[in-house]
Amino acid sequence: MTEIPVAPVGRILKNAGASRTSDEAKAELTAILEDYGLAIAEDAINIAKHAGRKTVKAEDIELATKLKY
Amino acid sequence: MTEIPVAPVGRILKNAGASRTSDEAKAELTAILEDYGLAIAEDAINIAKHAGRKTVKAEDIELATKLKY
Repeated sequence: MTEIPVAPVGRILKNAGASRTSDEAKAELTAILEDYGLAIAEDAINIAKHAGRKTVKAEDIELATKLKY
Repeated sequence: MTEIPVAPVGRILKNAGASRTSDEAKAELTAILEDYGLAIAEDAINIAKHAGRKTVKAEDIELATKLKY
């Protein structure tokens, strides 16, 4: 069970040009986005702490994403 | 405006251990997940076509993710 709902991810697939998508494919992409989001979130939290802040800011998310890939 | 709603992404940040997160940080992570999802979706559609299918399956999403990073 993911925080991200499956329906919007189905719409992303449709927006990308998919004519048909299996339910398993939608669930798979949702799980991948959830894992990726969690990994970036964990890094961003550490980056914020390192900067002496308790509040995670957009710049922490940006740096976490940049460092990850 | 993203397909993925911001609230579940806020919960991912909370699940990752964030005590406080700015609204801009939530919006930023949501946009990043949307872009990443769109990129994987586009690759998965091409992979499905390459396999002679119109339906995107979970295995196409998996291969697209594996090839991307």
